[in-house]
Amino acid sequence: MKRKILMIIEYNGANFYGWQKQNGKRTVQGELEEKISFLTKENVVVEGSGRTDKGVHALNQVATVEIKNKIPLVNFKTAINKLLSDDLVVKKVSLVDLNFHPRFLAKKKTYEYRIDLSKIRSAINHQLITHYPYEINLERMKFASKLLVGKHNFKAFCSADTSVTNFEREIYDISIKKVGNILTFKVTGNGFLYNMVRIIVGTLLEIDKVGESNILKALENGDRSLLGKTMPPNGLYLKKVEYDI
Amino acid sequence: MKRKILMIIEYNGANFYGWQKQNGKRTVQGELEEKISFLTKENVVVEGSGRTDKGVHALNQVATVEIKNKIPLVNFKTAINKLLSDDLVVKKVSLVDLNFHPRFLAKKKTYEYRIDLSKIRSAINHQLITHYPYEINLERMKFASKLLVGKHNFKAFCSADTSVTNFEREIYDISIKKVGNILTFKVTGNGFLYNMVRIIVGTLLEIDKVGESNILKALENGDRSLLGKTMPPNGLYLKKVEYDI
Repeated sequence: MKRKILMIIEYNGANFYGWQKQNGKRTVQGELEEKISFLTKENVVVEGSGRTDKGVHALNQVATVEIKNKIPLVNFKTAINKLLSDDLVVKKVSLVDLNFHPRFLAKKKTYEYRIDLSKIRSAINHQLITHYPYEINLERMKFASKLLVGKHNFKAFCSADTSVTNFEREIYDISIKKVGNILTFKVTGNGFLYNMVRIIVGTLLEIDKVGESNILKALENGDRSLLGKTMPPNGLYLKKVEYDI
Repeated sequence: MKRKILMIIEYNGANFYGWQKQNGKRTVQGELEEKISFLTKENVVVEGSGRTDKGVHALNQVATVEIKNKIPLVNFKTAINKLLSDDLVVKKVSLVDLNFHPRFLAKKKTYEYRIDLSKIRSAINHQLITHYPYEINLERMKFASKLLVGKHNFKAFCSADTSVTNFEREIYDISIKKVGNILTFKVTGNGFLYNMVRIIVGTLLEIDKVGESNILKALENGDRSLLGKTMPPNGLYLKKVEYDI
């Protein structure tokens, strides 16, 4: 009999070519499938809640895998974590219905973006935080972030190389916190387009240059060029995926 | 006219074969010499306060370099940091006397060792902290650490592959702090033998197995086998080097 195992996964994205399996490249999905197949002696498919790009981290990515192997769940977790490299770990496992799908059923996702405002970049944390040694306007950023909350056509907040045709997404919340030199963005929504969080953060950081009116225009006409830069991947973390179950 | 520049350097040791220059290997000293030579068009030698091993980090390594080039100090720092990779940065620069030597004149060094006591290892921080999901005896560790403070023959706390002949060192202080699941050791001394901090930490973590009497015996007879494991490099940070100037 088959079981469907739900896994909560953490990874440091620095040395992965993103989540999605690609021939000859080291990816999170690829490495999970390889190690679980090795453990169970089955050809398995790992489904994730969504892709993350090269260099993007996950604190709690959600993924499932179906296996026939009768290994107890707790042993599955211990065994798979011994097989996985240091930069990838399965934090929790549980059983879900065979018809559960981590992408189709995801209701909310939360991403975090971490920025180091120090004058000198951190060598120690270079994989984990984005260096931005420029002036910011925190109050204006917080105000402008409210313009993005709600249901909008986010076409302007999406990188060109996408196959998506429906650009409507709903953002539930954007919070921006500064503690010392560390600035943290938290964005929660029902789903995100390609590079959407990185463009939101880049736009808010440059709010004095971009201006609120261009954000409103971009939400209307989908013009990417009105907005700020796409921020690099190393500050981005998939923090939470929520379901109705 | 020559100037001697003192540099405070931070690096993430994960992708370096340690501090010391080695043919065909990526080392901190090698990379600094290469980039400073490129910048100044001189053949330079970078002297450090001491070596760090493969995988060991530095928050404030001290090093010097003599240059003839007349570039202003502040431009030197900016330019060199543009040339260096993300995992290596020069935090501060200043001028010192030509006869200043960062190793010979170092009076005190402080190392930090960071341990994650969580049940599940952190994939995000795998380069930056050592996972130790076992029971610890914090009070006994603190007590036993006092036995090491002072001037001792630390031969037993030194890995076999060393060319050193004088094993006497003085430890000024060892502090051990636990905040949540993070355990931090801070060790200050006048100098350290090869792997000395990593053996001290491994011994204190296993204090219930090693026992205080074996520590005292090892300080007497230099027997490495009486002590605990040599901990891995990824939790170790060179935190501070102090001088009398």
